[in-house]
Amino acid sequence: MKTAFRSAICATLAFSSRFLNPTHHCHSLILLYRPRRAALFPSKPSPFTSMASADSSDAALSPTIHVLEKQFEEFRHQLDDSASLRERIRSVSFEIESATRLMHSSLMLVHQSRPIPEVLEKAKGQIDVLRGLFCKLAEIIRECPGQYYRYHGDWRSETQAVVSVLAFMHYLETESLLLHAEVEEKLGLNPSEFGLDTEDYLTGICFMSNDLPRYVVNRVTAGDYDCPRKVLTFLTDLHAAFRMLNLRNDFLRKKFDGMKYDLRKVEEVHYDVKIRGLATNAESKGDGEKS
Amino acid sequence: MKTAFRSAICATLAFSSRFLNPTHHCHSLILLYRPRRAALFPSKPSPFTSMASADSSDAALSPTIHVLEKQFEEFRHQLDDSASLRERIRSVSFEIESATRLMHSSLMLVHQSRPIPEVLEKAKGQIDVLRGLFCKLAEIIRECPGQYYRYHGDWRSETQAVVSVLAFMHYLETESLLLHAEVEEKLGLNPSEFGLDTEDYLTGICFMSNDLPRYVVNRVTAGDYDCPRKVLTFLTDLHAAFRMLNLRNDFLRKKFDGMKYDLRKVEEVHYDVKIRGLATNAESKGDGEKS
Amino acid sequence: MKTAFRSAICATLAFSSRFLNPTHHCHSLILLYRPRRAALFPSKPSPFTSMASADSSDAALSPTIHVLEKQFEEFRHQLDDSASLRERIRSVSFEIESATRLMHSSLMLVHQSRPIPEVLEKAKGQIDVLRGLFCKLAEIIRECPGQYYRYHGDWRSETQAVVSVLAFMHYLETESLLLHAEVEEKLGLNPSEFGLDTEDYLTGICFMSNDLPRYVVNRVTAGDYDCPRKVLTFLTDLHAAFRMLNLRNDFLRKKFDGMKYDLRKVEEVHYDVKIRGLATNAESKGDGEKS
Amino acid sequence: MKTAFRSAICATLAFSSRFLNPTHHCHSLILLYRPRRAALFPSKPSPFTSMASADSSDAALSPTIHVLEKQFEEFRHQLDDSASLRERIRSVSFEIESATRLMHSSLMLVHQSRPIPEVLEKAKGQIDVLRGLFCKLAEIIRECPGQYYRYHGDWRSETQAVVSVLAFMHYLETESLLLHAEVEEKLGLNPSEFGLDTEDYLTGICFMSNDLPRYVVNRVTAGDYDCPRKVLTFLTDLHAAFRMLNLRNDFLRKKFDGMKYDLRKVEEVHYDVKIRGLATNAESKGDGEKS
Repeated sequence: MKTAFRSAICATLAFSSRFLNPTHHCHSLILLYRPRRAALFPSKPSPFTSMASADSSDAALSPTIHVLEKQFEEFRHQLDDSASLRERIRSVSFEIESATRLMHSSLMLVHQSRPIPEVLEKAKGQIDVLRGLFCKLAEIIRECPGQYYRYHGDWRSETQAVVSVLAFMHYLETESLLLHAEVEEKLGLNPSEFGLDTEDYLTGICFMSNDLPRYVVNRVTAGDYDCPRKVLTFLTDLHAAFRMLNLRNDFLRKKFDGMKYDLRKVEEVHYDVKIRGLATNAESKGDGEKS
Repeated sequence: MKTAFRSAICATLAFSSRFLNPTHHCHSLILLYRPRRAALFPSKPSPFTSMASADSSDAALSPTIHVLEKQFEEFRHQLDDSASLRERIRSVSFEIESATRLMHSSLMLVHQSRPIPEVLEKAKGQIDVLRGLFCKLAEIIRECPGQYYRYHGDWRSETQAVVSVLAFMHYLETESLLLHAEVEEKLGLNPSEFGLDTEDYLTGICFMSNDLPRYVVNRVTAGDYDCPRKVLTFLTDLHAAFRMLNLRNDFLRKKFDGMKYDLRKVEEVHYDVKIRGLATNAESKGDGEKS
Repeated sequence: MKTAFRSAICATLAFSSRFLNPTHHCHSLILLYRPRRAALFPSKPSPFTSMASADSSDAALSPTIHVLEKQFEEFRHQLDDSASLRERIRSVSFEIESATRLMHSSLMLVHQSRPIPEVLEKAKGQIDVLRGLFCKLAEIIRECPGQYYRYHGDWRSETQAVVSVLAFMHYLETESLLLHAEVEEKLGLNPSEFGLDTEDYLTGICFMSNDLPRYVVNRVTAGDYDCPRKVLTFLTDLHAAFRMLNLRNDFLRKKFDGMKYDLRKVEEVHYDVKIRGLATNAESKGDGEKS
Repeated sequence: MKTAFRSAICATLAFSSRFLNPTHHCHSLILLYRPRRAALFPSKPSPFTSMASADSSDAALSPTIHVLEKQFEEFRHQLDDSASLRERIRSVSFEIESATRLMHSSLMLVHQSRPIPEVLEKAKGQIDVLRGLFCKLAEIIRECPGQYYRYHGDWRSETQAVVSVLAFMHYLETESLLLHAEVEEKLGLNPSEFGLDTEDYLTGICFMSNDLPRYVVNRVTAGDYDCPRKVLTFLTDLHAAFRMLNLRNDFLRKKFDGMKYDLRKVEEVHYDVKIRGLATNAESKGDGEKS
């Protein structure tokens, strides 16, 4: 409780550091994370030469110049801080992307009929790495409360890929959908501080769906004739769930439109298996219920 | 102080409402501003029929379906809330743009040598309108703490135009730069809550600079031969101030690059006036004052 | 008859309101639906100051300025009316799209082998909603006779989706094509006033054809081996009918080209069923009927 | 009055011909302008071979096929009629463009200091040609009442060019703006039937403004130092008039934004003339009034 109070106060103070306000008392806070430059700047010669050269002795004009100079010094700090923050975010994003790529490579072995537990084990080893990286990201964002969405673009596509990989692993393990809250839990995200954006989650799930037709094809090749029916049930429910949403975000809507093709492809594999009587035993129970 | 604390706490709680978390205790908070739909939805038939039809008797699978459905219901609410919020923001932005256009139209009379006080008076009438509109915007954003930058794109170009117009008015009145904090004050912005983004301020100032060459040309045409020198001093200082900044934002850098041409153009007018001896009297007086 | 005459006269008069003509006698008609602004505007200060300031004593030039101002006042009204009309159209279009999405969601259950009557019943519930919305649209367009095609782009893709859904429902119910006149009837459209554009109908039918391969695949999976033959007959006739047309509209031609793939896909399913002897009984009966 | 009544009735009937309705009584009207094909078609072999071949003797199925065939025959006529109409419109548009190009060529001589009356005389010779062409266009559109905006895209850019040329001629002759109603009069347009779209007029005026800076430059070169002031007054008023409008049409807004540069350029020429004392006599009267 005490911590919550403190971080809340901190949020209020720090929030205002986003906007220039030379007389604001939160100035001390800004100095916390860039003491070096605050010291450097005063020693630089003034760039205001047009007036300064003509009016060095003119006390009357000085205040204006000083105020202008002070304002732009502030801006310089802000822009530099923002740029270095972005640099740090990008560096972490790059590592996230790298870990995700490793996981995806491991997961692809599932298409070569390697046993699922073995495939998952390798990939799971990277989850702790991801946790650490997202923890780093959350720490960086903690320095600039209220600005999650200011830098969101710098980690969003990497995060969507993470969701996609985790959701595919989860499907392989449980044949069910990895929930939004479960992704946050796996990644050690604290939603009150640095959570998973809903649209990023949804986009990641769409990406995961793109892997399913290939999975179904390769499982059937390996003799698992029951897989298409299961995936079809899962994907049909997922598609129905997405249809509940009014998607106005163009990117997400486009990705969702792609899910239709995954569904159709899985239906076709299911059809192939069914028409050849290969799925007979597995589905006789289901058929009995339907008729 | 007490209020600040309360709103900070509220911010922390509400921040988490951005992310889906069906079991989260802040659920009550979400319901505060959309009770109608929460009541409507349960009465809708479930779209999850593929499993339901096959497994209607299977009690074990039901929870999964319910959790999935519940999660997407949440998403639907979130996306709809976000869309309607965006709708409201856009509507206010549109009004801001309209008021700014009126101010700009009034200001353009300055190019036809109308007396500055008269020109400013008309434009100033709209500042109260703008205050009201930015107050509306701040109220909307107050509903979603921590998401200023999520919707920032929906008011940023309009706000840049506002800065440009206000800064031009301020220059006409005082021959000095309108500071960031002064814009916030004029617009009634509370920087700890809904402030003026620094880059928006800087972009607006660049736009203002684009109006200066035209102003100088028309002033000289109207016989005011002292104007180029004054504007040149102002623009030179402003350009120097911008040069202090490490601009990595592509859009802002491009706009700043344009300021160079404004400066060059004003220099040329100043030169024309000087070389023809038109500014002699005017400037000898000014020079006298300075030396 | 009398009504027809009156609305025709009205159309002729109102048609001319599209074009600026300050002295035109139909001015009274324009005022009918925007009295508020016509009253507001005269109180605004004139923006035409350049001439006014220079020639305030010149009575000869005043008329020109007044005519110019009057013309642009008219334009302002026209453009604002047109913009608000468009706003209203888009809002109705959005509702049409939303109702269509609901219908489509219900219809998708047919791929999961739900009984057709049950599937149709749900979807049919929305037809009345659509009727109401198209009635709204027709009312809006009635305000601007002769301008159906001016705003056509604002409802056309939504209407194509409506045609697609209605035609699919009709096929499920009757195994035949929903005619153009039947769509108009279902939607309560009065072709002499607000009809269904032929190309929109044709495009909607192409969209419907895209759903058929998936339908056939899922019907066969569910054990209905007679479905491919029926759909193939229907689609073959439909494709032949489209081939009668000289399609120069690029969009429609492209959509029609897509129908070829639907046809091919359905043929392949029919072949699969046939070659495995699955359709033997089913078709021998049909063949028997035919020969 | 009698004529108005007749054409209004005709409009109502013909309007419905836009939409397919095989049983509609307006069929006779459609036949008026395509009797040839109506005769041709019945002799063609039926394209419905899938069913027809199998069921030629089956009277039970015939009605469906006949209805389908009949509908698509109708569509074929409609699409062919629409295509040939468009062909005719484009051919007239092409001639309009050609006549406008001739006029523009003649007008360009004004930049070489040819006397204005001489320059105008040549260009005026083409106005009768344009009248004839627009009369042709109106006649074509009269065949499809209520569809002005369906084909509008096929003559709009040509019409904008016509407006631009006529407005420039009018400015040369009168130093004032050619009004919308005056364009219609010059082109013999009857606004109750085939008028000039407001946005086309406005776009044409923007194009005209683009010719003014060059005109001013060349007039000054030829020693006419009074021209910049006059054009500046004209363009300032025109610009102010446009600013009254809420332009949401992107194309028109962009063209209007361009007018700002024309204004600035003319201001600069005016400035050049003024600063060199070349305009002294001409403007002493204006200056006297201002100071």
